[in-house]
Order: sequence, then C-alpha cells, then structure tokens
Amino acid sequence: MRILISNDDGLRADGIRELAQVLVELGEVIVVAPDRQRSAAGHGITLHKPLFVEEHDFGSGIRAFGLSGTPADCVKFGISEILRDNKPDIVVSGINAGSNLGNDVLYSGTVSAAIEGSIQGLPAIAVSQCGTEPFDFVDAAAFTKKLIAQVLQRGLDSDTILNVNYPQLAPTDVKGVRITTVGKRRYNNHYDKRSNPRGVEYYWLAGPLQDLPPEPDSDIHAIREGYVSVSPVHFDFTYRQMLDTLKTWSLD
Amino acid sequence: MRILISNDDGLRADGIRELAQVLVELGEVIVVAPDRQRSAAGHGITLHKPLFVEEHDFGSGIRAFGLSGTPADCVKFGISEILRDNKPDIVVSGINAGSNLGNDVLYSGTVSAAIEGSIQGLPAIAVSQCGTEPFDFVDAAAFTKKLIAQVLQRGLDSDTILNVNYPQLAPTDVKGVRITTVGKRRYNNHYDKRSNPRGVEYYWLAGPLQDLPPEPDSDIHAIREGYVSVSPVHFDFTYRQMLDTLKTWSLD
Repeated sequence: MRILISNDDGLRADGIRELAQVLVELGEVIVVAPDRQRSAAGHGITLHKPLFVEEHDFGSGIRAFGLSGTPADCVKFGISEILRDNKPDIVVSGINAGSNLGNDVLYSGTVSAAIEGSIQGLPAIAVSQCGTEPFDFVDAAAFTKKLIAQVLQRGLDSDTILNVNYPQLAPTDVKGVRITTVGKRRYNNHYDKRSNPRGVEYYWLAGPLQDLPPEPDSDIHAIREGYVSVSPVHFDFTYRQMLDTLKTWSLD
Repeated sequence: MRILISNDDGLRADGIRELAQVLVELGEVIVVAPDRQRSAAGHGITLHKPLFVEEHDFGSGIRAFGLSGTPADCVKFGISEILRDNKPDIVVSGINAGSNLGNDVLYSGTVSAAIEGSIQGLPAIAVSQCGTEPFDFVDAAAFTKKLIAQVLQRGLDSDTILNVNYPQLAPTDVKGVRITTVGKRRYNNHYDKRSNPRGVEYYWLAGPLQDLPPEPDSDIHAIREGYVSVSPVHFDFTYRQMLDTLKTWSLD
C-alpha cells in the first residue's frame, strides 16, 4: 500500500511526523508538506509563483518533501509529479494541532489537502487532534490507521472525504466514535490594532468563538461530549432550493 | 445604500475600478481589496502575519483600501473594522478577469470574498468576466447593478451567494440569462520543471482543462452557449447520503 501524507502545519510539525511513523507500518509512506506553517490556507493554490521543493530525512524509509506552497499544492504536486508513475492508494492529511470543526473546514488547510486528494480521484482523510498544547498524537494516529483499513476495504464515494477530530482525553475517557454532521461555528471577528517601532500601523485578526448551541448530531457536539468525530465531507456548491426562485427574478 | 466591494485580482485591477465607478451610482461604495494579485487564494485567511492597510484614491467619493491579505481577509476586515459602525447592505466581489466556472469556485478568491460576506450575514455576489485579454467590464458591471437591485428587493437565503459569469460577447450576441448549477471541471495537472540561473530547480503548475461534456443545466454550458450564467452557491459540507453507511463501519 502507498500512502501520501500532507498537512498544513508544515513538515516540521510533530503531528505529521508521528502520523508518518505509525502509517509506515501499513506500507510505503511519502510525505509532501508545506515547508512552513500554512494554517488557514483554505483551498489556495499557487499559480503566480514557482514552487521549490526540498527532500528531507524522516527515517524509517519515509520519503519526505517540503514544498514552498499550500496544502492543496502539496497534494497536487505529490500525485502529479513525485508519484506520477506510482499513484498512492490514499491521501491522509494531518495530524493537525487543533480541531477542524464546523464551518472552520472552509478555512482549513488540513481539510483542503484531503479535498485535493479526492479531486484527484483518491480516497482521502483529514485528521485533527482537538485541544491545546501540549498535544499528544499517538491515539489519533492509531485511530487513523484503523480508519484507513476501513476506507480501503469499503471505499468512499467520489468527491467525498472523511474529516476526523480526535478529543483531547485519556484513552479510557474517550466514549467511542460518532458519525457526525459538520456543525455551525461563528466568530466575533475583531482586529487588534498596533504600531511597529517605525510607527506603521498593523492589525491582527482576533475575536472569540460565538457560543452557539451545537446541533446534537454535529462534530462540535460529539467532541464536547468526549467522542471521536468522523464527518463525511463533500463540497456541494449548487444551492438547488433556490434554482426555481431565481428563475422568477427580472434579470433580462 | 452601502456597498462593500472586493476582488482577488487586487486593487489595481481594471475590473474592480470599473465596477466601483458603476456601483457608486447606487450609493456609497467602499473598496477593500488585496494590495496585490491574489488569484486562486481559495478561502485562505491570514492568522500568522499581521495585516497592513493603505488608503488609495479611486475618485468619485469612493473610499478604497489595499490590504496585505487574502480576499476573505479583505471582506472580514472591511465589515469588522472599516465598516464596524456602518455595516454594508451587500458585498460584491469582482469583476474578475476570467471565468470562475464549475468547481473552480473552490479555488477562486473572487468567490471566497463573496462567501465571507455571506458568513458575516450579508447578501453577496461574485462576478467574473469570461474570456481572455483584452477584457471589457462595462456590460458585466451594468448587469451587476441590475442584479443588486433584485437581490436587495427579494433577498438571498443565509449562507448563499450568487456566482455570476458574463460571456465575452458583443451585447447583441448575448442570448440572455440562465440560472445554472455549478458544473464539473477537471484539469490534467502537470508541472513544468525549470532551473534558475543558480541551478536551483523549481516548478510551475501547468496542465490543460479536461474536455468533459458539460451538464446541460451547468454554468459551463450556459457560457459556451452565449448566456449570462447566475448560479446560487452555498457550501454544504455534510455528505448526508453517507452518514448511515458510515455508522456500519467497524471503528470502535
């Protein structure tokens, strides 16, 4: 089996190293990841700059490449260039340091790497470890290994990925696995205004999460309750409910 | 009426200037756009770098700001900071130089600026001029003006935007307006490998569009046939058809 791994925290992140070391027990592992932190990259790709690539040593026979692009670039480049003649069987993105819950998946580089795998016609999984520093990725990696076996045995529909969020709990406190919907999250955006030593003003995006009541079948609720959350995610762009209404608008 | 305009081609692009000059006939126009070309930025946001902002002169009483961020950053910043006490009535993104058809909307910074407007609770439109250089944005801008009136009169459902693609045709050759679904597009990705004068290798993303037969109700087909395409777009992440199947997998 051949597994392509990527992430958005970059090649130096602990989460991707730990994941690679566990998944190499299943077969050949190739890592193609951003050469720096690219969180919240969304589904950006690099069209206007060339991409530079450098090979790194991950040990255990794992080939690892750092790319000067986004997570989606890494998966595209991994499949179309590095593994052009040896397509992978599955794409795994993560393990992200921090959750990717609810509509944060729209901003998530972790999820977008998996989506790119699915656009390229491969089964794909995104994995995030919920909580805060210090992170431990051992349990989430073991779960991912089990999930890969199921994905390869049972298959995923085209244009669909699985988005996994793992709770930050001791193994005995994890209540089980829940299949979930992608919940709603909203932030109270605001910007911190500062001045640099030369008097130039700049802004940092800030603002807390709104405390919305989570829908009971959602990923957000599952994590709050102490479950592993697995959501089937696809990008269905057309809002069909509005097609007929729009046809009555005066646009000609 | 107050209109927030953004794009992904950057503040210097002709498409956004032309759009602002036409929409200022409807009311107050505020432009917040990337300070450089940010095509294919997807829904990236800037968390790890501060944002710098500079005010520019667009004439006609239009306030215009160049931001060192992505299209989604621009809309977030415009609503949460510049217009904090005077929320806009609508967000318009464009006019993009080139189409945003089919699942290209996933990569599109133009569409993601509109999506961010809708996440912030505002009606939003993305507008693209199809074709190639030289672009003329006059007809697409006039159409956008008409569409805004309809949107404000009839309203959009929450989390939904309208994605407009305008054909590159003389006004008399435009066949009319079609309400469309978001079609399927696939690229044959490959990478051009080159060496810089110092012998360092680098890669450019390349590769042509696959010639798939377009679905008859799709945006891709409407543009091919000479129509203006208007698609209702939302991001529905949960692939509900798979929820029950997944519950039968062995994951515990």
